[in-house]
Amino acid sequence: MKTLKVAASSKATSLAGAIAWAIRQQEDVELVAIGAAAVNQATKAVAIARSYLALDGIDAICIPAFADVEIDNQERTAIKLIVEPR
Amino acid sequence: MKTLKVAASSKATSLAGAIAWAIRQQEDVELVAIGAAAVNQATKAVAIARSYLALDGIDAICIPAFADVEIDNQERTAIKLIVEPR
Repeated sequence: MKTLKVAASSKATSLAGAIAWAIRQQEDVELVAIGAAAVNQATKAVAIARSYLALDGIDAICIPAFADVEIDNQERTAIKLIVEPR
Repeated sequence: MKTLKVAASSKATSLAGAIAWAIRQQEDVELVAIGAAAVNQATKAVAIARSYLALDGIDAICIPAFADVEIDNQERTAIKLIVEPR
């Protein structure tokens, strides 16, 4: 499982390329995002990656979940998006 | 397919209840969100709905896509999250 941390400033198309690359290598991807802007970028990246992967006949799906992460000794709730072939 | 419009002010738990209800009735759900805050609420709602549905042995997955919607005669790009059983 490849873990990619997503920030509000992450470029959705670059992220999508990384997701599609991993999935093509038969590796599932876990996107970790904290905050609405980062979750938005992560979701857009999955939508774009799906279109890249569709060209290879791969139907990628996404599983959202909550995750607790520690940043600067503070517990924060992140959104984790697992991306995998259907 | 049940369409639910998601706003930044939508309550994720209420939305999750509506998603889980529809899926249990064998109806797929389409969440339509415009803007980062709404996409964030939609994604959280799917994560919560997944935990509700897991209690019934249903493994729900999510498919994000872009969609063009018209609001006040202006074209806006929305994020559409389709939720369905795996």
